[in-house]
Amino acid sequence: MFEAVELRKEIPKKQFDKELAALRPKLLKAQYALRETKSSVIIIISGVEGAGKSEIVNRLNEWLDTRWVRSHAFWEESDEERKRPTQWRFWRAMPPRGSIAVMFGSWYTEPVVKHALGKWKQSRLDVAMSHVEQLERMLTDDGHMVVKFWYHISRKAQQKRLRGKGGRRVSKLERMYAKNYRNFQDASARAIRLTDTGNAPWNLIDAEDRRYRDLKTAKILLQFLTDCLADAAAGKKKPTRRDARVSEPLSGKTVLDIVDVSRTLADKEYDAELRRYQDELYGLSWKAHRAERSLVAVFEGWDAAGKGGAIRRVTAGLDARLYSVISIAAPTDEERARHYLWRFWRHLPRDGYITLYDRSWYGRVLVERVEGFAGQDEWMRAYQEINDFEEHLHLHGTRIAKFWLHITPEEQLRRFKERQQIEWKKHKITEEDWRNRQKWNDYAIAVTDMVARTSTAFAPWTLVPGNDKKVARITVLKTLCETLQAALDS
Amino acid sequence: MFEAVELRKEIPKKQFDKELAALRPKLLKAQYALRETKSSVIIIISGVEGAGKSEIVNRLNEWLDTRWVRSHAFWEESDEERKRPTQWRFWRAMPPRGSIAVMFGSWYTEPVVKHALGKWKQSRLDVAMSHVEQLERMLTDDGHMVVKFWYHISRKAQQKRLRGKGGRRVSKLERMYAKNYRNFQDASARAIRLTDTGNAPWNLIDAEDRRYRDLKTAKILLQFLTDCLADAAAGKKKPTRRDARVSEPLSGKTVLDIVDVSRTLADKEYDAELRRYQDELYGLSWKAHRAERSLVAVFEGWDAAGKGGAIRRVTAGLDARLYSVISIAAPTDEERARHYLWRFWRHLPRDGYITLYDRSWYGRVLVERVEGFAGQDEWMRAYQEINDFEEHLHLHGTRIAKFWLHITPEEQLRRFKERQQIEWKKHKITEEDWRNRQKWNDYAIAVTDMVARTSTAFAPWTLVPGNDKKVARITVLKTLCETLQAALDS
Repeated sequence: MFEAVELRKEIPKKQFDKELAALRPKLLKAQYALRETKSSVIIIISGVEGAGKSEIVNRLNEWLDTRWVRSHAFWEESDEERKRPTQWRFWRAMPPRGSIAVMFGSWYTEPVVKHALGKWKQSRLDVAMSHVEQLERMLTDDGHMVVKFWYHISRKAQQKRLRGKGGRRVSKLERMYAKNYRNFQDASARAIRLTDTGNAPWNLIDAEDRRYRDLKTAKILLQFLTDCLADAAAGKKKPTRRDARVSEPLSGKTVLDIVDVSRTLADKEYDAELRRYQDELYGLSWKAHRAERSLVAVFEGWDAAGKGGAIRRVTAGLDARLYSVISIAAPTDEERARHYLWRFWRHLPRDGYITLYDRSWYGRVLVERVEGFAGQDEWMRAYQEINDFEEHLHLHGTRIAKFWLHITPEEQLRRFKERQQIEWKKHKITEEDWRNRQKWNDYAIAVTDMVARTSTAFAPWTLVPGNDKKVARITVLKTLCETLQAALDS
Repeated sequence: MFEAVELRKEIPKKQFDKELAALRPKLLKAQYALRETKSSVIIIISGVEGAGKSEIVNRLNEWLDTRWVRSHAFWEESDEERKRPTQWRFWRAMPPRGSIAVMFGSWYTEPVVKHALGKWKQSRLDVAMSHVEQLERMLTDDGHMVVKFWYHISRKAQQKRLRGKGGRRVSKLERMYAKNYRNFQDASARAIRLTDTGNAPWNLIDAEDRRYRDLKTAKILLQFLTDCLADAAAGKKKPTRRDARVSEPLSGKTVLDIVDVSRTLADKEYDAELRRYQDELYGLSWKAHRAERSLVAVFEGWDAAGKGGAIRRVTAGLDARLYSVISIAAPTDEERARHYLWRFWRHLPRDGYITLYDRSWYGRVLVERVEGFAGQDEWMRAYQEINDFEEHLHLHGTRIAKFWLHITPEEQLRRFKERQQIEWKKHKITEEDWRNRQKWNDYAIAVTDMVARTSTAFAPWTLVPGNDKKVARITVLKTLCETLQAALDS
């Protein structure tokens, strides 16, 4: 989840100053307009220790008219608070209509900390998060907005910042957080996955660069306020439009920029590895069959990224009785007449079998989002629907591997042209492929959101470098072997 | 929960034939109109063994055009089904847009049975129900309707029906279900409480009288279809209107008809009991204080039913340091500016203290519903919001007692007139009281829904017979003593 956020985006000071200067009056104007509506806004500031949450709270107080903003730091519980139900302290801080509350620490803090430090089991975290989901749904149902920010920094950056405090003492608490970085990441990822809803989505922000962090926060907040006001103007009781992009043209960087496409593999090495992993896969798939473990593999990627070729290398290593490949094109009449997930449920493998999906349910948050076939409310809530779906499979015992085959735009162009030269490959390039190419950036943003929001402990994404087809195929085969092996070991 | 359903409503054959004859063409017409929309309807038939679920499924197939209805009995899992994730079998049965699926047994069956028979703990039932809630929300978000029927019969009726089978053999399964009647009731109540949402509410139906059962089913189904069509006609993607009344003027009976208002108490006996329970309450409240247990008591009831008098008899038995009485009138500006539950959160007692609410959050589903201050979508989802709220208090350790003070309309009239005679009580009778009296039936229906939907294991309603004020006061005092005693014992 967080890998997709770590994009090391940097904003030069000049750009920052200029963009912020343009944003600030808009923010204020939106805030004043909010006063006339029946909505209130709850801003939740959370994230990794050392990411600068306190700075962000100060920033918000600079940007907004503080007469109608109240900041609440949920620090140690007071005696008054401890003696009442958990949510009591948060209800005290609920902003009246027309105003804004900034919550530094929130209903997420205690559950995440307790689970990260091993005091709560995951089941208890899950129950707490289902209460949080209820609370947030109740608030948004009533017309309030819940804007959730998660600020992420890498372990390295965290250590650097704690050291960088110079004379200032690093507290015992900070040291303890830093020591348990990995546990905090896991607990946070779980909390985010369970509460990343269409009505109150998370905004995951890379906080390594302070200017990027601040600008992104301002932009998202403005977007939320604008959407909220548009809904109010349209007479809608309940806000329906939400935007929560992990990445945006702000810096041009997306998760795909961290895929190392320069790797290549020599033919000889490739042949050896191909044979090795296909043999291994063959053995593992039979073992999984006997152990009644099933596997679902999802293949997504750019046009001409080599999905078909990769799938063929996988199936060459499988007994034909054990797998099926489901190619997802336009839905049939039967499928169109039902919920979008229905067509995928149909083809789920039985225990002991494997289904490979050539394109998948992720169409909802890729092509349907980019082309506008699904409304924003529909694709925004799809992340949670998809995570729920995959967790359901996982709980049954099905293992899941998901691949995004990545190539650069230049490589795609080369392949398109190449295909047009070859008589028997010509049909593979259509007008649509060229059209999709125009929307490269929109797709890259959608992929970044997808990877950030749906990379879960039980169904992680693998970003496959695809400029060299051999590297791509070996990466896929190896990952599938590892997935099956882990399933058999568990 | 189920007590409020057991109303022994009976429909004479002549009325039944006439009403059904009027309903059937309307049902068919609505079904044909549904074909033109993008919605589908899933009808879930569940309930107590012996309540006639199978008959209902047959009835639905008689009433509707079977070309666009498919019935699915989720009986023993097939080999194909067992080897896939739990929901797979249900997804196979999802109806295409424009058509209807009747599910005899459903995603509720296995969790309820497993928990009732002690094979699943409550935590596992809770997790399963949260998955069900997700599934149903996903379907209704996509524009489908989920109409859920729960057919209830009393234990006595169940035994009679099983015996009544005469020559037919009572199966081992039926005997086992009958033996565990109480466990099934508890498991079902929990499942219903967790999934009684605004988007897919439960319809609880008294199935003792077959004609009432059938007529009520037809009426509710017609209402759902009509609402659904109205939404579709208004261009709404997502159905917003829902009706799921437990009781309705169909037979005129409500939960209040089972309150025995004829009981009286002699003065001498009253004095003795009053002293006894006030003393007991005093001791228990101090013990609870030392044990840091808090108590919330909710007083609702008809105008002039004697809420104030009952509360004064309670407080006379308490140390003034330990309790506060919160009288809920029109909300203040501060309160109006926030979520309707906010004003109640404010006044929650600390551990070791007691709060008595003279009227409460139930205003949302009583006066706000009847007077139309809250929209149907708002009060329909309020049942779940309120149950969530009370469970939150319960999990913290707060104990909850809820009283509905009931008097007959005749007794109310007598009291109104009496008050008008007495100079210092005159002010207590306003125009509004007379207006509310006009809506007696609407309120009685709202009370029935409220009691059925919010009587939970952790926060049960006590229906207090109020025609004799002495009976009412002793009932309240006794219940509070029992609640505190149970809290101290647990």
